[in-house]
Amino acid sequence: MAVYTEIGDEELRAFVAQYDIGQVSSLIAIAEGVENSNYLLITDRDRYILTIYEKRVRRADLPYFLNLMTHLAARGVACPVPVAARDGVALREIAGKPTAMVTFLKGVWPRRVWPEHCQALGHALAALHLAGQDFTGARANDLSVASWRGLFAPVAGRADTVKAGLAGELDGEIAALEADWPEALPSGVIHADLFPDNVFFENNDLTGVIDFYFACDDFFAYDIAVCLNAWCFEPDGAFNITKARHLLRAYRERRPFSPEELDALPLLCRGAAMRFLLTRLVDWLTTPDNALVKPKDPLEYLDKLRFHRAVSGPGEYGLDR
Amino acid sequence: MAVYTEIGDEELRAFVAQYDIGQVSSLIAIAEGVENSNYLLITDRDRYILTIYEKRVRRADLPYFLNLMTHLAARGVACPVPVAARDGVALREIAGKPTAMVTFLKGVWPRRVWPEHCQALGHALAALHLAGQDFTGARANDLSVASWRGLFAPVAGRADTVKAGLAGELDGEIAALEADWPEALPSGVIHADLFPDNVFFENNDLTGVIDFYFACDDFFAYDIAVCLNAWCFEPDGAFNITKARHLLRAYRERRPFSPEELDALPLLCRGAAMRFLLTRLVDWLTTPDNALVKPKDPLEYLDKLRFHRAVSGPGEYGLDR
Repeated sequence: MAVYTEIGDEELRAFVAQYDIGQVSSLIAIAEGVENSNYLLITDRDRYILTIYEKRVRRADLPYFLNLMTHLAARGVACPVPVAARDGVALREIAGKPTAMVTFLKGVWPRRVWPEHCQALGHALAALHLAGQDFTGARANDLSVASWRGLFAPVAGRADTVKAGLAGELDGEIAALEADWPEALPSGVIHADLFPDNVFFENNDLTGVIDFYFACDDFFAYDIAVCLNAWCFEPDGAFNITKARHLLRAYRERRPFSPEELDALPLLCRGAAMRFLLTRLVDWLTTPDNALVKPKDPLEYLDKLRFHRAVSGPGEYGLDR
Repeated sequence: MAVYTEIGDEELRAFVAQYDIGQVSSLIAIAEGVENSNYLLITDRDRYILTIYEKRVRRADLPYFLNLMTHLAARGVACPVPVAARDGVALREIAGKPTAMVTFLKGVWPRRVWPEHCQALGHALAALHLAGQDFTGARANDLSVASWRGLFAPVAGRADTVKAGLAGELDGEIAALEADWPEALPSGVIHADLFPDNVFFENNDLTGVIDFYFACDDFFAYDIAVCLNAWCFEPDGAFNITKARHLLRAYRERRPFSPEELDALPLLCRGAAMRFLLTRLVDWLTTPDNALVKPKDPLEYLDKLRFHRAVSGPGEYGLDR
């Protein structure tokens, strides 16, 4: 919900002149997307999303993200495709900031999730994992288990102001996750942030997946765990096993689970909950009280973490062995 | 730069089903527009702007605004046209809030203003004034001279924290404007907020005027004064007489000035500066220091006010008698 960088007329003209995309007809600042400045650019030929990367994205990571989208799209994944300028280069600059243009995806992200959405998501997620297998780029997951203690430390002293006992609970949980985290599981490119607002549908058909700016190499099942947390809990906090079953069954139709993945799923779900709990907690404790954009409630993810801690096996996610 | 109301899927479906506009293909929250929540709605047939009116717009005023746009568009003014649902009614509700859909205008608002823009603006403003002459709606200008003392009073005590001596200067200026404000001048429907971000261009051709939510009945020349302030000063504060001359000459080609309008122009420009100075001052003093959206600097308009106070006649705006 932010546009940090305004684009001047001459800048826009000079930028667009680098591409073979026709005449600009509209340039509309988009409210969605917290990390970067996003514009819908409409020309007399097509629609594009123009993204100016702000400080939260590392410049060195951008070729990985853009190459990945190009790779996945070439293998049939419905995702934005970076548009190269006439010189063949997609990563450029506006106002001294790295900037890229990608194709526009139609569809609307689901404000309310139904089991049919989860089924389509399961198919798409497996397809994404398979399509990434021959991608040659590499990027470590810098928000996984090794990072959590460092994320938590600066806010640990204030965690109990959010909820009594939170600091101790998170400290113990991080230690348990560090001790039990799997060494090896089927791995490859994962999206790592596949929330409903990053998946578009038209009617109930999935039209595409966006926002690859957390993509990295990690366990496929960790990506599934992120999705279980983001798609299969109701607004009141209840876990919806029907949605989970739709997601997991559909995924499995495209890519079978190994026994080790099934065993690890509850732990990975705890870890995925920890990752979003921690980044939300940091935002919560560092955002001014009266800021216009309210940070998301970290405790939503504490409840999810506790749910998974009580899960005894993948059957509780609706999965048969 | 805000979207205050999220639209649920069922709400969107139910809303769109009331219209004959085809199937929804995209719904994109727009960052521009501070007062209301705006979405770009793309269907398989056309593009629309969906506006959910938030608390700053009075519900009772909405029929005036929507009827005015319909009236102006029918007379050839390039402006958004309210789209009626199947029952013929354009003003509806989403999430209990008044909502309307209008047609989408192509073009990009000028981030940097050139004399050619001002010339096109002059023609469009005169055309708007002429097209409004047979409009039967009525709405008083509630942000004109009669309102300024009341706007100023609650923040007068803190005005000197923005600039030493500001409270006294504004107090005296309001008194002078009240004393000298014209009783009668050629009047009719005015836009009252015609800033560059409300006027779209494609290349240098004006493609349309948007945001009629301050429109009201008032002196035509007051609308011109708003534009002189918003379009004819450089970022460094200097008045650009070339831009003003382009604006005023073009306007006059479509609607001649009366001698009384010419005489009143410097005073109306002071008044128009006062109106934006006061609303900005109120925002400045009531917005938290650490809010994400910084309020606009009220002192920009103090400088404009002072400039006009030193003007001896319309010749200084580039106009011949």
